[in-house]
Amino acid sequence: MSDKFPQRPAVILIDPQLGENIGMVARAMLNCGLTDLRLVRPRDGWPSEPAEAAAAGATEVIAAARVYDTTTDAVAELRRIYATTGRPRGMVKTILTPRAAAEEMRGLAAEGTGCGVLFGPERSGLVNDDIALADSVIEVPLNPDFRSLNLAQAVLLVGYEWFQLGAETASRRIDMGEGFPATKAEMVNFYERLEAALDETGFLFPPEKRPRMVRNLRNLFDRAELTDAEVKTLHGIISALRFGKRGEE
Amino acid sequence: MSDKFPQRPAVILIDPQLGENIGMVARAMLNCGLTDLRLVRPRDGWPSEPAEAAAAGATEVIAAARVYDTTTDAVAELRRIYATTGRPRGMVKTILTPRAAAEEMRGLAAEGTGCGVLFGPERSGLVNDDIALADSVIEVPLNPDFRSLNLAQAVLLVGYEWFQLGAETASRRIDMGEGFPATKAEMVNFYERLEAALDETGFLFPPEKRPRMVRNLRNLFDRAELTDAEVKTLHGIISALRFGKRGEE
Repeated sequence: MSDKFPQRPAVILIDPQLGENIGMVARAMLNCGLTDLRLVRPRDGWPSEPAEAAAAGATEVIAAARVYDTTTDAVAELRRIYATTGRPRGMVKTILTPRAAAEEMRGLAAEGTGCGVLFGPERSGLVNDDIALADSVIEVPLNPDFRSLNLAQAVLLVGYEWFQLGAETASRRIDMGEGFPATKAEMVNFYERLEAALDETGFLFPPEKRPRMVRNLRNLFDRAELTDAEVKTLHGIISALRFGKRGEE
Repeated sequence: MSDKFPQRPAVILIDPQLGENIGMVARAMLNCGLTDLRLVRPRDGWPSEPAEAAAAGATEVIAAARVYDTTTDAVAELRRIYATTGRPRGMVKTILTPRAAAEEMRGLAAEGTGCGVLFGPERSGLVNDDIALADSVIEVPLNPDFRSLNLAQAVLLVGYEWFQLGAETASRRIDMGEGFPATKAEMVNFYERLEAALDETGFLFPPEKRPRMVRNLRNLFDRAELTDAEVKTLHGIISALRFGKRGEE
């Protein structure tokens, strides 16, 4: 019973026109780890060569896409449906941001509830009957004077928010490649060497200003979050600057 | 001094190839309220008719775009630069998600610090010298097996996160059009009328189950968050169902 396992939202395109746009949707879906693409009455037929070309490698999504005659058929086994629309349609509907919808869908997926997101045709958007079929509307907060997104971009933003909630990426990290953050002992050793060299040259003068100058220098290098290799390079630079020859590094 | 006022990030395209892609970038920028577009060595020259066509109305961004010979010239007066790249490049750099970068840029903008985001050419991405010029790298968390975004989509995701932090949209709201949420008195009046009608027909039977049935019914309609007009409609439905005639609504 697939209903017992976490599910990913289906992307349902109603009356999509250009195959190229369907392909770009498939690409945006796979960028976000989504693979369940459903097409209701694709205007130019299916399968579609322009769709495959525009999918830019997202062939698994294109190959698995299913075609339906009606929106009702396309969403039949799903339990929660979202409609995407840029315009209010004079219906009383709950309106969610993509982020709030993604949170809801993650919760539903975790309990095995299938959900799907409806996207209308390129120019006109969803018709009211399709919106009425949805439990809620997703509206992307954008510049109110310039809201129109193309189809693949709308899919991308909804999928992006879905993916972010499962991503284990730290919001800020440092890519050190093969290196490691320098240990505190390595840092203190470097600071003491630098300060000794600067004392010898008379740079840390007058004495009453020395503590503050030293603290500022340590803060400067601390902020850089040095790797072990970079600390060695800096040792080499001190040697080179003082004695005119290349350091160990 | 424009430096004294909140600023919006500049979008800097390095060696962009197709004018069409520049136009789609302009559109994505304006979707997100960004207008400062800078082009470094656009391959097909500037101005560009394909760019204007693809901008789909974002003509103010296209018209104000500035062209530079070098990345250094393009970012000269800015104080914080972000590089976007999908691939690690063997440099020790702070890596931010688009959301973390947007938070940082909002903070910088609020204190009048100009910042900009570098985007590389369509296929190859930024070269290491341009990445080195940046203070941090923005990496979009996406499906690790299928990460590649087109240029306008990368701009859209960065701009989207920027816009969200300034958007005053509630993450969940109900679009009631001209209507208002029903008052609690209107709701209780409706419940009592419904329950009285159901008592008369013998639906709320046996008596020991009545309290629970009533609570469940009230919960059902409460969840719908009815408008005043919808409550009137429901009154009409009760009348119609009971007496076979159309209600007031």
